[in-house]
Amino acid sequence: MTQPVLSVDAITSLIKHQIEELNLPVAPQRLYDPIRYILKLDGKRMRPLLALMSYNLFASKVEEMVAPSLAIEVFHNFSLVHDDIMDKAPIRRGQDTVHKKWDENIAILSGDAMLVKAYDLLTRAPESKLKQLMVAFNNTALAVCEGQQYDMDFELRSLTENPVSEAEYMNMIRLKTAVLIGLSLQFGGIIGAEDEITADLLYESGVHLGLAFQLQDDLLDLYGGEQFGKQMGGDILNAKKTYLLVKLLEIANDSEQEQIIEVMASNTMADSNKIAIIKRLYDQHHIADFVQSKIAVHLSDFNRAIQSIGSERAENLLDFVNSLANRGK
Amino acid sequence: MTQPVLSVDAITSLIKHQIEELNLPVAPQRLYDPIRYILKLDGKRMRPLLALMSYNLFASKVEEMVAPSLAIEVFHNFSLVHDDIMDKAPIRRGQDTVHKKWDENIAILSGDAMLVKAYDLLTRAPESKLKQLMVAFNNTALAVCEGQQYDMDFELRSLTENPVSEAEYMNMIRLKTAVLIGLSLQFGGIIGAEDEITADLLYESGVHLGLAFQLQDDLLDLYGGEQFGKQMGGDILNAKKTYLLVKLLEIANDSEQEQIIEVMASNTMADSNKIAIIKRLYDQHHIADFVQSKIAVHLSDFNRAIQSIGSERAENLLDFVNSLANRGK
Repeated sequence: MTQPVLSVDAITSLIKHQIEELNLPVAPQRLYDPIRYILKLDGKRMRPLLALMSYNLFASKVEEMVAPSLAIEVFHNFSLVHDDIMDKAPIRRGQDTVHKKWDENIAILSGDAMLVKAYDLLTRAPESKLKQLMVAFNNTALAVCEGQQYDMDFELRSLTENPVSEAEYMNMIRLKTAVLIGLSLQFGGIIGAEDEITADLLYESGVHLGLAFQLQDDLLDLYGGEQFGKQMGGDILNAKKTYLLVKLLEIANDSEQEQIIEVMASNTMADSNKIAIIKRLYDQHHIADFVQSKIAVHLSDFNRAIQSIGSERAENLLDFVNSLANRGK
Repeated sequence: MTQPVLSVDAITSLIKHQIEELNLPVAPQRLYDPIRYILKLDGKRMRPLLALMSYNLFASKVEEMVAPSLAIEVFHNFSLVHDDIMDKAPIRRGQDTVHKKWDENIAILSGDAMLVKAYDLLTRAPESKLKQLMVAFNNTALAVCEGQQYDMDFELRSLTENPVSEAEYMNMIRLKTAVLIGLSLQFGGIIGAEDEITADLLYESGVHLGLAFQLQDDLLDLYGGEQFGKQMGGDILNAKKTYLLVKLLEIANDSEQEQIIEVMASNTMADSNKIAIIKRLYDQHHIADFVQSKIAVHLSDFNRAIQSIGSERAENLLDFVNSLANRGK
């Protein structure tokens, strides 16, 4: 039987509606208001979208897929609230972060409640799939914590004495961000495909997609133009160990390395100078081209995996992913 | 068939062994070391003990009950790690708290990983019970967050302008601590009894028990002697809104209320004076007797509920609870 294709717009408004219908309690207000606040900030809601489109490769009884998709979105938002505390980030999606708008205790506790709420949503999945979903979810959730820990550990590492290797960096972003994209696609497979091999293939394909997205984020911070409402080159000013910097340090010669350290550590150099110097080094070493080709490999791995499933609704998912992959170009 | 009675000692060493066998990953070290650390601090492990003894009212295939019991213990420890950050507590079970030994970020993130680990343990329960266990667990976990939020909200309330009422206080401790004792007993019923009414009865009985324990903790802080390694009267010095203080403020006259405020707010009065003055007021108003009788009512509700189940192994559970209830006497 031909299943109806779910459009991106239809899924987007479904998710928006369902988030409004979560029916969180009113009291205690300082626990639940921050949850309502962060969930309403206008994110892309890419993860539930991907989960529903992955599911739609096989089936279209949307009602069995909505709660588990939202579980992933709520988990993602939980991780943002806690990461923002740890990173002391004041702004998220153009608005105050939860710990800034309220305080750190509120952000810790409402984050905790969100994590529980994610499991509550998961419990509404078809019961015959619950255990499989739980195992996949727990593995991914622990991996996300590990990724955040590695990211924090990397902050303490010296740029030259004990540099983060490319392999370490790729492992960190795989854990911190890519596996959750993997889980989103895997959930669609577990619930829609009824076949573990397909679900695992979707997970792997999602990890490739997540890696591509994170590498693209690293690139867009400097090369994205200003359409994202972010300062360009913010990662350089924050001396953030992005893929670009990790790769540059790997291939830079000694005097270039010294220059990088000097610029990154300087408290007196103008921001625009810092950005210009590091960007020139990136350009000299063709770092952006290198990242672009790495992104292309992961996207093509993703595409190949999805096409191998042979669903007549694959184009819908692939078009959506391409639209995301082409942002900033 | 007569099921073997599981002794407290046997269960205690089983739990200790199982916690050592959790097989947490080694890396990232700063994520998993704090989890190993807090789980090894010598707590009473009352919750998994109660869960296993509740289960043993009906059955004795311990292996199906161990993982869900540990899930509750790990959840409890997660909540301690995060609460200690929020309360800025330096000491837990006579040792440094996680955020003190490492830092707040580490405590936030390893706490998060513990919460996920609790769900991971839960997933190892018999699959036919998984959904019921998850629903009960999620309800309780959200309630615990709500209780912690109310507790923090209460800190901001004025002692006289906007005092915390007895009913509010009882609701707070029900959420913050009693429902998790309820869940421990409920889990035994869900897995052992196969009958929802019994599991619900066990939950309610556990809530009574948890209320009794918390009221007893409030009492022991001042009247417990020093066998618990805690300073006596610490709650008074911290101006903590315990049941004793809430009740005293409710029945104290205007001049007594003024005195309480003055003592609680003073930065110059000697600690021993503060404690002596407030203790004298508690004694004049027979607050301790009042709390004792309230504890007795909740314990007797607990006892009655357990006896109504008619298990031949009820004495084992009741003896254990009595030994806990008589600590500090």
